[in-house]
Amino acid sequence: MTAVGFDEPGGPEVLYAGEHAVPVPGPGEVLVKVAFAGVNRPDVVQRQGKYPPPPGASPLPGLEISGTVVALGEGVRAPAIGERVCALVAGGGYAQYCKARADQCLPVPANLALDEAAALPETLFTVWHNVFERGYAREGDTLLVHGGTSGIGSMATMLGKLFGLTVIVTCGSPEKCARAREIGADHAIDYKASDFVEEVARITGGRGVDIVLDMVAGDYVKRNLKCLAMDGRHVTIAVQGGIKAEVNMAVVMSRRYTLTGSTLRSRSDTFKALLAQEIIANVWPLVLSGELRPVMDRSFALADAARAHAHMEDGGHVGKIVLEA
Amino acid sequence: MTAVGFDEPGGPEVLYAGEHAVPVPGPGEVLVKVAFAGVNRPDVVQRQGKYPPPPGASPLPGLEISGTVVALGEGVRAPAIGERVCALVAGGGYAQYCKARADQCLPVPANLALDEAAALPETLFTVWHNVFERGYAREGDTLLVHGGTSGIGSMATMLGKLFGLTVIVTCGSPEKCARAREIGADHAIDYKASDFVEEVARITGGRGVDIVLDMVAGDYVKRNLKCLAMDGRHVTIAVQGGIKAEVNMAVVMSRRYTLTGSTLRSRSDTFKALLAQEIIANVWPLVLSGELRPVMDRSFALADAARAHAHMEDGGHVGKIVLEA
Repeated sequence: MTAVGFDEPGGPEVLYAGEHAVPVPGPGEVLVKVAFAGVNRPDVVQRQGKYPPPPGASPLPGLEISGTVVALGEGVRAPAIGERVCALVAGGGYAQYCKARADQCLPVPANLALDEAAALPETLFTVWHNVFERGYAREGDTLLVHGGTSGIGSMATMLGKLFGLTVIVTCGSPEKCARAREIGADHAIDYKASDFVEEVARITGGRGVDIVLDMVAGDYVKRNLKCLAMDGRHVTIAVQGGIKAEVNMAVVMSRRYTLTGSTLRSRSDTFKALLAQEIIANVWPLVLSGELRPVMDRSFALADAARAHAHMEDGGHVGKIVLEA
Repeated sequence: MTAVGFDEPGGPEVLYAGEHAVPVPGPGEVLVKVAFAGVNRPDVVQRQGKYPPPPGASPLPGLEISGTVVALGEGVRAPAIGERVCALVAGGGYAQYCKARADQCLPVPANLALDEAAALPETLFTVWHNVFERGYAREGDTLLVHGGTSGIGSMATMLGKLFGLTVIVTCGSPEKCARAREIGADHAIDYKASDFVEEVARITGGRGVDIVLDMVAGDYVKRNLKCLAMDGRHVTIAVQGGIKAEVNMAVVMSRRYTLTGSTLRSRSDTFKALLAQEIIANVWPLVLSGELRPVMDRSFALADAARAHAHMEDGGHVGKIVLEA
C-alpha cells in the first residue's frame, strides 16, 4: 500500500509517500481501507521530531481516519466488514490501510461524508475529555478558547454551544474572528488588536470565564488565569507558546482555580474505548441528527501530505485539513 | 466579656485582652460560652495584617472554638442550650463568648475533652475538603504532606491513615520526624538532612505520590510536582514559602497533573454547612469511637494569646495549640 512517512525529522518536505506493508489487525483490531485521514497539530510536531510515537504505535503519522472495514482481528464482533467507520488511531493514518481498535471506531451514518468523518475523532475526543470531563463544563458556563478557527477551536465552539456554554474565542485577524462567529462563538477577540484579558473582563462584566482551553501555555498561562472566574478551570492541551509558566499560587488558592491538562495519544486503549463509548452516548446523536459537523478547511491528496502540513503551519486554515487516501 | 484582639498589625505583642460586648446570635446562629479556642496559622497571618477578615466577620482572631451553647438565634432548633459543641467560626474565637452558625457546630461527645474539641474543626474541615474532595484521595493512594507535626500535618496524617492512604511527611528535624511517625506517618523525611524529591522517589520506587498537600508554595511547587505520580493532584492551602511558582505546563499535560487549592475562611456559610454534614457523616464516627483525636501541643490562658502566637511562630510545637477561655 501507499503510506506517508519520513526518515528524519524536519520541515514539511521530509514527508514522502512510499510503499509499506498493509498492517495486519491483531486481537480487538480492525483493518480500515482509509478514505480520508485527518491532519492534526501533533502530526506536525511529530514530523519535527518533538513528539515521538508511544511504544508499539506506528511510526507513520496520522491519528484519525475514516473508511471502510475490510478485515477483522481475533475476537472482533463489531464493527462488521463493509461498515463505514471513523476512528482514533495510535498512528499510521496517512496510509491507504490502517489498523484501528474496534472499540475506538465510531459508526459513520449515511448523512455524514467520509471527509467530514475523518475530521471528527481527534478534536471530538480531545474536546470532550478536556472541556467536559477535566474541565467540568456544564450548561451556563463560559468557555475561553484560543485559536477559535483551528480544528480544536472550532470543535470546542460547536460542542460548547450545543451543550449550553457561552463561548469566547481569540483569533489573529478580523477575518478569522468573523469566521469564528459564523462557527458559533458568542464573542471573538482579535488578540492582535486588543488585550484578550481586558476583553474577557469587559465581555463577562468582570466575572471571568469558568474554563480556559489552553493550547498555548508559556506566557499565556498568567494571562489566562486573569481571565478565570472563581472556581475556574484551566485545561492545557498543547504548549505552542512554551512550557514554562509562572503561576501565582495565592491566587490559585484564594480563587480556587484548577490547572490541569492531558494528551490523548498516550492514554491507554481502555481509556480511549471508554471515551468512545461516552462520545457515542452523548455526542453521536448530534452527529446523526446533523447538528454537529466539523468545520472543513480543505482536502489534499495523500501524496501531497507535505503541502497539507505546510498549509497548517502557515496558519491560514479555518477548521480541519484532511488527506484523501 | 474578655476577648483578645489587636489595634494595629504587628508581632505577637500587639495582641491584648480587653472588654468587648457579648455577641448577639442572629438567625441561624448560636452563642457559645467558649471553653477553648484553637490557634491557627491564619490567625498569625491575620495579626500580621496580611489576611483581613472577610466582610461581616468579627475583626477578632480565632477560627474554631469549643464550649457550651448558651443562647439560640432565631430559627435554631439544634444544637440545644446546654449542649457541648465545637465549631468553625468566621472569627472572634479568642473570646469568652462567640457566635457560631448552628449548622457549623459539631456535637462534642462525652469522651472528647473540650480542649481537644477546640483543636478539631479548622484542620478537619481543611484536610477533609482539600485532601479528600479537591485532591480525590482514595484508599491506596499515597499522600505527601509538608510539616508533618503541624496541626494540619498531624490531622492529614491521621485522617490519611484512617482512610487507607500511605502517608509521607517532611519535617525539619530528626525529633520531629520521630514524632510524625508516632502520629502515624509511614515515612518522615528530614528535609534539612536530605532532598525530599529524591527521598520520595526512593520511598515510592520512582512512582511518586498521588497527592501533595502543599502549605509552602513558592519554590516548593516545582519540587512537589517532581514528587507526583501520573494523574497526581497538588493542593495548595497556604503559601508560607512565597506565592510565585514556576510550573512546566508540558509536564502538567503529559502527566495529567491537577493543581488546585482553596482557603476555608472565605467560603460561604452554605458550603461550610455542607462540609460539616459530610464530616459528621464520614469522620465524626471515628471521633465518637475514639480512633481520631487531635495531636495536642499545649494550652495557654486566653490572656496569654501573644505567648501562644510566639510559640507557634517559633515553630517548635507539635500538633495543636489552644487558648483556655
